Amino acid sequence: MSSLGNSTNIFWHECPVGKSERQKLLNQKGCVVWITGLSGSGAVPLHIPFINFSGKSTLACSLSRELHSKGKLSYVLDGDNLRHGLNKGLGFSAEDRTENIRRVGEVAKLFADAGLICIASLISPYRKDRDACRAMLTDANFIEVFMNMPLSLCELRDAKGLYKLARAGKIKGFTGIDDPYEPPLNCEIEIQEKNGVCPSPFAMAGQVVSYLEDKGFLHYQ
Amino acid sequence: MSSLGNSTNIFWHECPVGKSERQKLLNQKGCVVWITGLSGSGAVPLHIPFINFSGKSTLACSLSRELHSKGKLSYVLDGDNLRHGLNKGLGFSAEDRTENIRRVGEVAKLFADAGLICIASLISPYRKDRDACRAMLTDANFIEVFMNMPLSLCELRDAKGLYKLARAGKIKGFTGIDDPYEPPLNCEIEIQEKNGVCPSPFAMAGQVVSYLEDKGFLHYQ
Repeated sequence: MSSLGNSTNIFWHECPVGKSERQKLLNQKGCVVWITGLSGSGAVPLHIPFINFSGKSTLACSLSRELHSKGKLSYVLDGDNLRHGLNKGLGFSAEDRTENIRRVGEVAKLFADAGLICIASLISPYRKDRDACRAMLTDANFIEVFMNMPLSLCELRDAKGLYKLARAGKIKGFTGIDDPYEPPLNCEIEIQEKNGVCPSPFAMAGQVVSYLEDKGFLHYQ
Repeated sequence: MSSLGNSTNIFWHECPVGKSERQKLLNQKGCVVWITGLSGSGAVPLHIPFINFSGKSTLACSLSRELHSKGKLSYVLDGDNLRHGLNKGLGFSAEDRTENIRRVGEVAKLFADAGLICIASLISPYRKDRDACRAMLTDANFIEVFMNMPLSLCELRDAKGLYKLARAGKIKGFTGIDDPYEPPLNCEIEIQEKNGVCPSPFAMAGQVVSYLEDKGFLHYQ
């Protein structure tokens, strides 16, 4: 019998169908691809207007599409979308951000346990919150992808008009403006602009797929 | 732009790989099998000691096993297990039970959207909480399974020793003793004892699998 905060008398139930059996069925390995970065951190420069806005969500979707084309099952947990459901009622204070990320981490862990390649796409600005999610999984199953784009570029693009609102003081606690973003120290994958040009969504997805392929996530031995 | 409780400036991101594509990949249809009933509500009578204790969790696992043997991907969300992770910190007050069930419902919805047959196993004693989870999905994708076992049988078996503690006043708010259980009014599946004998875990799972088969969840057209 365990004692867990307010939850007492709660037993742990082991199930006869485990992660390895689900992975075998899917011929892949469950893991979490955690995409972190500033809002609009995949923004393309204005002089290439024909490329769609490509931020964390765009990479998440593009990656999901690439994996699907290879017959692999993935699922995107989008930080913004979850605020309409599971995380409804949470705001943007440090405590609420932490709880928001903790819940996404817990759900991502369940999806990885279910055998899926779970793609979590959240600003997740604080290192300790991301590290807490990493600690929920075995290290190798948490793949942190840092969208390393300069604030100036994100702000220049400002696809959602949020930076403008934040600069005008109409949004408080906006990451990069009046709330810090702490870059990862040891992420598995870093995506960067080159000479002011962002990689295309397809190229970014390819970078992640190559990593997953190399590490053996796309097959089950 | 939407306004959601404390969450403002949150956009909804549509992903190019949708539920139908995942369902096609898996050759099944995502749904939620929600198992509700008293603690130990699948308890077998004492005069058949060779049959394992078989409650909600046992049905969940047995069902998961049966589906796996048919090549179908399912995942069990066990109410007790989630209290170690996602729902850590929630207790057993009416508010906390409601929030506990709401979060499980939201996660179950995500799993169904991912294309899985999500098996949720929780006492979930209040009708309004279960109905709120049903309302998160389209009606046909929420399959409520009522483990309709008499309190006397659950208490007689008392596999976890919890009824004894509750009767002694050492656990407060225990469903069936000093907290109500509201049986479903229109559940999809009801599992009952016959002449004091519970169906075996295999028989119970078979009842649910037949339902899923009949309703077309085990294939994708």
